[in-house]
Amino acid sequence: MKANLGRRYRLSASHRLHSERLSEEENRAVYGKCANPHGHGHNYTVEVLVGGEIDKGTGMVIDLVELDACVQREVLQPFDHENLNTLTAFANRVPTTENLCIEIEQRLRRALRPELSLTVRVEETSNNFFEYRG
Amino acid sequence: MKANLGRRYRLSASHRLHSERLSEEENRAVYGKCANPHGHGHNYTVEVLVGGEIDKGTGMVIDLVELDACVQREVLQPFDHENLNTLTAFANRVPTTENLCIEIEQRLRRALRPELSLTVRVEETSNNFFEYRG
Amino acid sequence: MKANLGRRYRLSASHRLHSERLSEEENRAVYGKCANPHGHGHNYTVEVLVGGEIDKGTGMVIDLVELDACVQREVLQPFDHENLNTLTAFANRVPTTENLCIEIEQRLRRALRPELSLTVRVEETSNNFFEYRG
Amino acid sequence: MKANLGRRYRLSASHRLHSERLSEEENRAVYGKCANPHGHGHNYTVEVLVGGEIDKGTGMVIDLVELDACVQREVLQPFDHENLNTLTAFANRVPTTENLCIEIEQRLRRALRPELSLTVRVEETSNNFFEYRG
Amino acid sequence: MKANLGRRYRLSASHRLHSERLSEEENRAVYGKCANPHGHGHNYTVEVLVGGEIDKGTGMVIDLVELDACVQREVLQPFDHENLNTLTAFANRVPTTENLCIEIEQRLRRALRPELSLTVRVEETSNNFFEYRG
Amino acid sequence: MKANLGRRYRLSASHRLHSERLSEEENRAVYGKCANPHGHGHNYTVEVLVGGEIDKGTGMVIDLVELDACVQREVLQPFDHENLNTLTAFANRVPTTENLCIEIEQRLRRALRPELSLTVRVEETSNNFFEYRG
Repeated sequence: MKANLGRRYRLSASHRLHSERLSEEENRAVYGKCANPHGHGHNYTVEVLVGGEIDKGTGMVIDLVELDACVQREVLQPFDHENLNTLTAFANRVPTTENLCIEIEQRLRRALRPELSLTVRVEETSNNFFEYRG
Repeated sequence: MKANLGRRYRLSASHRLHSERLSEEENRAVYGKCANPHGHGHNYTVEVLVGGEIDKGTGMVIDLVELDACVQREVLQPFDHENLNTLTAFANRVPTTENLCIEIEQRLRRALRPELSLTVRVEETSNNFFEYRG
Repeated sequence: MKANLGRRYRLSASHRLHSERLSEEENRAVYGKCANPHGHGHNYTVEVLVGGEIDKGTGMVIDLVELDACVQREVLQPFDHENLNTLTAFANRVPTTENLCIEIEQRLRRALRPELSLTVRVEETSNNFFEYRG
Repeated sequence: MKANLGRRYRLSASHRLHSERLSEEENRAVYGKCANPHGHGHNYTVEVLVGGEIDKGTGMVIDLVELDACVQREVLQPFDHENLNTLTAFANRVPTTENLCIEIEQRLRRALRPELSLTVRVEETSNNFFEYRG
Repeated sequence: MKANLGRRYRLSASHRLHSERLSEEENRAVYGKCANPHGHGHNYTVEVLVGGEIDKGTGMVIDLVELDACVQREVLQPFDHENLNTLTAFANRVPTTENLCIEIEQRLRRALRPELSLTVRVEETSNNFFEYRG
Repeated sequence: MKANLGRRYRLSASHRLHSERLSEEENRAVYGKCANPHGHGHNYTVEVLVGGEIDKGTGMVIDLVELDACVQREVLQPFDHENLNTLTAFANRVPTTENLCIEIEQRLRRALRPELSLTVRVEETSNNFFEYRG
């Protein structure tokens, strides 16, 4: 029997939306206030949805201690309380929340057992969220 | 790479659930207090889920200024602070939240580029919501 | 030892903000879209804060069954799924949430034992609330 | 036209995570504090997602009075304010929220008309939830 | 300049409401389903409101690392994932949330510097909370 | 009759906690990850609580259009989508949320009629908030 476990983590970070492929004017048109040169920030909620067989012995889809350690190492340690624009992961990509979502999914995908399904959802504000399934 | 963007909008409206195809007694049985002749109201939360390719240049699924303008014109302007029963859209349909959800999806579907996927979810109260994917 | 118990109740109602003391133009200036003639609606959250001595025997400030019955009779039965403008309580007052809050406080104040303190808070939307302490 | 209705219910219960298939040490390793012998508890939110055709006459996917009665009888009456470990349903299964979710889905599946689709989601805490679709 | 800092902590525990000063019938009348012999449980949210002068050097009311360590030691370690009825703190008092709230306030009051003001608020469910100021 | 109106606004900003009165080591000890040189960010919720007489004519404590314009001009325009450390308001103060809360209160206090009472509450994350009453 397969079920999904969803688990929420929180991280605070700053970013500035600015693309080197666009002119200053285009940046302002596309990103509005998000292009302000000094950056701004968010409390991101990262929701990790893991699907798999329920283990007959434990009654669980995945060991939560293992999942928490994985998210701590792959997501919270590198991104929490950082300026996303200064990280290698976003050296060649604008740190939009779409791209943050994909980056998180790819890091967790490599770390989790392949038989588990994975969807990542990142809430940027209480009105905005993004989802990615690899 | 495809991702989903979810964005929430809020509108307040009143409605009365009453079907001309049903007798007074049947209306009361089906809709309970929602059939009260003077109507009642809700704060609806409209969650629009738009899926599409992430633009390499901007790192975004859809330009938010464009999406907001579209929802403003197609949904908030016609429905916010209105009595749904008095609107043309519900002249021949009971303004249940199921039907409101479909009406909103159809208006946005016509307005958005066809390569974008679309799901609309309307929260009627903190305990009730409806989803429609055309 | 004195403590406060807070308990939340929910009701859905419609209203139209329109004062007979103001001209049509003034009504529109003061209330904006809330003056639309067909009315609109809200899911109100009513938070009742009751303060008093903790009973040594039961360990409780007030019996919840008693409080629920009181709120049911004095608040939910008369106001839930109604159009506030059609009720006697608002025959001579605009049904703003300020006035709804006071009306609820006065009804509960008469019904509760006088040694209990009482504050009523009404959430109109997720961004707006009102508080009244008699 | 098919739509989904989601409806939330709440129940409070206690449980202890402890598997007879595991040694005391393994139980502690797998379940951590959740294996404490005296148990602990949660406010569970049960979200029932029912999909089906919108009835042309009523404009509704399912009669809410009928759905509420069904959930009351099949879920809230047997599980609310109980210790899950003492119930027959969990005599041979650890009462993890994964297993609670499946148990609820199976009870509702038997009770609802077969043409309706059904997904059950149980929130264990504000950071944890589980989903099951039979 | 004085300001308040509010900080939320979460704990899961089980309890049974049953007073030795009351007969079986009275217990059932006062506590309803909460008197079930096997107990039930909640996710409690503990909100600690600490008031004091803002330190000119740090710009803070209280060092958060210090506050977190204090709450961890005085509240989460003894109460999280426990059955409240089995603890010494509730040997002679019914573990209502009113009494839990007072117990938490008293433990923190002894641990915090006396010039800081303190109010404790415990949310038992999304509809119920209790407040105590010593 | 006096009542309180509470209204919530949202802003996103970045900050770095770092005091020039402290050594590098002390800064790290006091602020932890919040002292990271590149800064990080938050979605702040600003709750403005305004108390006053209910106007007999309008049934309102304060005109919401006027309040919104005031908060837009005094708070959202200067602080939203900015890096707080770069603003004049925080040239000589660490931009802790305590200090942001006081700064917002002082700006609104000067702008609102003196007979209105005012309390400002700023939520920094879902677990942390600050309150100031001038």
